[in-house]
Amino acid sequence: MATQSAAGAALIETLTARLGATSVLTEAGAIEPYLVETRGLYRGSALAVVRPRDREEVAFVVSECARAGIPIVPQGGNTGLVGGGVPFGGVVLSLARLDRVREIDGSNATITVEAGCILRSVQDAADAAGYLFPLSLASEGSCRIGGNLATNAGGTAVLRYGNMRELTLGLEVVLADGRVWNGLKGLRKDNTGYDLRDLFIGSEGTLGVITAAVLKLFPKPQARVTAFVATASPHQALRLFERLREGAGDQLTAFEYMPDFGLEIVLKHKPGAVRPLTGRHASYALIELSSPQKDADLQGRLETILGAAMEDGLVDDAVLGASEAQSLALWSLRESLSEVQRLEGGSIKHDVAVPVSRVAEFIEVATKACEADMPGVRVCAFGHFGDGNIHFNLSQPVHMDKQAFLAEWGRFNHMVHDIVHAMNGSISAEHGIGLIKRDELSLYKDPVALDLMRTLKQTLDPHNILNPGKVVAIGDHSPASFPAPSGQS
Amino acid sequence: MATQSAAGAALIETLTARLGATSVLTEAGAIEPYLVETRGLYRGSALAVVRPRDREEVAFVVSECARAGIPIVPQGGNTGLVGGGVPFGGVVLSLARLDRVREIDGSNATITVEAGCILRSVQDAADAAGYLFPLSLASEGSCRIGGNLATNAGGTAVLRYGNMRELTLGLEVVLADGRVWNGLKGLRKDNTGYDLRDLFIGSEGTLGVITAAVLKLFPKPQARVTAFVATASPHQALRLFERLREGAGDQLTAFEYMPDFGLEIVLKHKPGAVRPLTGRHASYALIELSSPQKDADLQGRLETILGAAMEDGLVDDAVLGASEAQSLALWSLRESLSEVQRLEGGSIKHDVAVPVSRVAEFIEVATKACEADMPGVRVCAFGHFGDGNIHFNLSQPVHMDKQAFLAEWGRFNHMVHDIVHAMNGSISAEHGIGLIKRDELSLYKDPVALDLMRTLKQTLDPHNILNPGKVVAIGDHSPASFPAPSGQS
Repeated sequence: MATQSAAGAALIETLTARLGATSVLTEAGAIEPYLVETRGLYRGSALAVVRPRDREEVAFVVSECARAGIPIVPQGGNTGLVGGGVPFGGVVLSLARLDRVREIDGSNATITVEAGCILRSVQDAADAAGYLFPLSLASEGSCRIGGNLATNAGGTAVLRYGNMRELTLGLEVVLADGRVWNGLKGLRKDNTGYDLRDLFIGSEGTLGVITAAVLKLFPKPQARVTAFVATASPHQALRLFERLREGAGDQLTAFEYMPDFGLEIVLKHKPGAVRPLTGRHASYALIELSSPQKDADLQGRLETILGAAMEDGLVDDAVLGASEAQSLALWSLRESLSEVQRLEGGSIKHDVAVPVSRVAEFIEVATKACEADMPGVRVCAFGHFGDGNIHFNLSQPVHMDKQAFLAEWGRFNHMVHDIVHAMNGSISAEHGIGLIKRDELSLYKDPVALDLMRTLKQTLDPHNILNPGKVVAIGDHSPASFPAPSGQS
Repeated sequence: MATQSAAGAALIETLTARLGATSVLTEAGAIEPYLVETRGLYRGSALAVVRPRDREEVAFVVSECARAGIPIVPQGGNTGLVGGGVPFGGVVLSLARLDRVREIDGSNATITVEAGCILRSVQDAADAAGYLFPLSLASEGSCRIGGNLATNAGGTAVLRYGNMRELTLGLEVVLADGRVWNGLKGLRKDNTGYDLRDLFIGSEGTLGVITAAVLKLFPKPQARVTAFVATASPHQALRLFERLREGAGDQLTAFEYMPDFGLEIVLKHKPGAVRPLTGRHASYALIELSSPQKDADLQGRLETILGAAMEDGLVDDAVLGASEAQSLALWSLRESLSEVQRLEGGSIKHDVAVPVSRVAEFIEVATKACEADMPGVRVCAFGHFGDGNIHFNLSQPVHMDKQAFLAEWGRFNHMVHDIVHAMNGSISAEHGIGLIKRDELSLYKDPVALDLMRTLKQTLDPHNILNPGKVVAIGDHSPASFPAPSGQS
C-alpha cells in the first residue's frame, strides 16, 4: 500500500504538472460526486478525479496511469445504472470537458461530437441544423455521449432508429497504453478489416476510452400521432404490435407497454396525471407513428389499424392524442412510471430482453412465477415491448417490511433470469453489466463467450487498468459485484 | 514438406474416417472449382476439400486441423471478389452443405439460417413466409450466407436496410480451436458484454468459421416506383439525393448512379436495352421508392420531388417506370453495367467509399486525375451513390493494348486510393480485403488500427490456421498479395 500511495502521489504530481491543478481534483468534497452511484447503490474511492480538456490530455493521462500501474475509471455523466462508473481506488477520468460538437455534415447526415457532450446538447445541435439525432432516454439532460457509447444505450427510439451502436459510424479511442486509434470516419460502408468500432461500443470503458464519435442524423419527423390503447393481455398487445409493424412499417416509432398496476400508480402519485381511458384494463400500449413527410396521414392510418384490431378483439379501447399537448400527456404517463415506483416501497428490478415473439409469454410466465412465490407482490412489467425489452420490476407487497422484501433481491433475480434464459433472452437488455450484473452474467452467458470476453480484455488491456472489475472479473484486485441491495430504492 | 505431407495424409485419413469419403474430396478434378478465384485472378492449391454436413462436423474438422497445424480456408459460394476464398495449401472447408433454414419466427421478424444457404434461397424462404430479407447483390443466385457474413456484404439495398452486419442479430461460430460459440440469439437488445458478433462479421474467415446466423426480416414492400433521371453532373445528383432523403425518408430504397459512358456501353452491348431518355446526359440516377403500405402514393411523391428539382435545375430529364416491367427494364440498365464493361477491353477497378457529402467531388476529382494521367481512358464511376460507395472503374483507351493498360493497375490504384484517403474514405467499401487489397491496406489504414487487427488475429487464432494470409499478414507462410492483374478481365 505504501508503494501504491507513493506511486499515486507521483502520478498526481505528473498529471497536475501537465494538466494544471484545476484539472486534477483530490479534495474530498470536490471528488465526492464522482464516487457515488446515481441511486446510491455503491460508494467508491479514488486518488483523484482528472478532467482533461482534449484527446491529447486524455492520452497523456492514460499513458501515465498505465506507466504507474494505476487504474482508471472513465466517467461521463455518471448516470449509469449498473455501477460501471464507480471507482474502487485509482483515478476517475472525467470526459465532461471534451464537450465540443466538432462538425455537422448535413449532406452526409452525420454529427461528430466529443465524448463529454451531454446527450440533450447533441439532440439540440442536430435539431438546430435541421436534423434528428434520435437517441432518447430518461437521463438525456445529464448523461453524456461517451457513456451512451460505453453502454450501447437504448431508450424509447430503438424500435425505429436502433440503439447507440446502430447510430454510430466512427470512433476515436484512447487505448490502454495511451495510443490513439483514429477511427473517426463518417462512412456508410467500410469493409477494410475487423470491426474495431463495435468492440469498444458497449465495453463500458474496460477496453479503451472513447473520446469522440461520428453519429448518424435523420430527417426530422414532420408529422406525429400518439395513441394510448387498452388490451386484455400482453398477448393481445403482441398481436396488435405485429399488425402495426406490418401496416405502418417505419412509421411505427414507439410501442411501449405498461400494465394496469403501472398506470394506477402513475395516476395515484403523478400530479396532474389524467386517466386516459374509461375504466381499468389489464394492459396498455403507448403507440407513436411519425414521418418526415408533413402530409403523411398518420392519424388515418392509425385509426384504420386500431379500428380493425378493435373489431377483431385485440383492442378494448383507445384514445388518440389529438394535439401536441395531448400526445405529451399520454407520453408522460409512460415516462412517469420509473419515478413513481419508488413511492410504492421497495422495488426489485430487471432489465431483460427476449425475442419479440415471446415477450407476452415472458410477461405472463414471469408474473405468475413471482406472484406464486410471494403473494401480494405487485409486478410492474413495462417498457420497450416492440424491442422485446421489458423492465420487469417488482414492487413490494403493501404491508411488507421494505428491507425484508429487498433481501429477496438475488432470489427474484435468479427466478426471473432463469425464465429469460430459457427463452434465449438477455439479462441486460440496455443497461449493461458493470458491477451489478457481473457475477450474475457468469451464470447465464455462454461459457465460450465469457472466455472470449476475458481473452479480449486481457489482450486489449493486459495490465487491467481500464475500469478493472467491471463487466468481467480479471485477476485479484476486482471488487466484489453487487453485494446486497440495501441502498436500493 | 515431408512432415507436412505426412501430417496432411494423417489428417485426411482422420477426417475421412469421421465424415465419410464423399465429404472429403482430394481428387484433382473434384477440387478444381474450389481452387480458382471467380474471375480467374488466383489459382490456389489444397490438400483436400472437406464438406461437413453440420456444426458438429465443422467443429471436428477445425479441431483436427488445429491439432495437425494445417490451415483452413472457409468457403461459401466462392463468389468473392478479393481472393479471400482461395486456398494456398491446407484444407478448403466448404460450408455448402450446411444449407438449412432452421427457423422462421414471423412474430420476431427473424430467420435463422445456416452458413451454406444460398442468398436467394433465404430471400425466397422469407418471401414465402410473407417477409422481406433485403440483402441483394449480383451474385445472389450462388453466393452463400456464410460468405455474405464473412465479407459484411453490401449491395443495392444498403441505403434503406443496411449491410449484412446491420441485418444480423445472432451468430453461431466455430473458433480456431474447434470450440463452438453459440450466439444464436434473436434479440433486438442485448448489452451483456463485448460485441463478439461484429468481430466475426466481416473478418473473412480469419477469426472463426460462421456456421449459422439469426437475420432480420422486414415487411414486404407493397408499393414501389422507379425513376431514371438525367442530371448535369454528380454534384446535381448529390443535391437531388439530399432532397429525396429529406422528402421521402425511408421510402427511398435506392439511389444508384451511372455516368454517360456507362449507359452508352449498356445500350451498345446489352441485347434489348432501350435508351430511357432522349439524348445523352452527363450523369444518371436510378431512384426507387418503396413502402410496405399498398396505398402509399409513391408516384405522386416522387413526381413532386422531381418536378421541384427540375424547376431548380437539378434534373434535366426523368422517366418513371409506370409498370413493373418498365421498372425492371430501368433496373436492368444499372444491373447490366458490371457485365458489359468487360466487352470494352481491360478494366481497372476500385470499390471505394467516401462520406456522402463528398461523393460528387470524389467522382469529379478522381475522374480528372485519371483522364489527365492517361488521355483516352474511359472512367466508369457508378454504383451506390446514396451510400457514398462508388465502383470507380477505368476502361482502357479504345486502341490501347489491353495488357499494357492492365500493367498500370497498381499505379491507378494508388492514384485513386490517395484521393479516397484524403477524403477520409475507404479503399474497400463492400468487397473486403482478402488477398487483393491486403498490402494496399497497410498504406492507408490507421497504423494503430492495423496493429489492433494483428493483435486480434493473433489472439483469436494464435496458430494462424484460419484463412492465413488474408486481411492481415501474420508470420512467414502468408502468400504474397495480388501480384499482377494479368488474369483480370
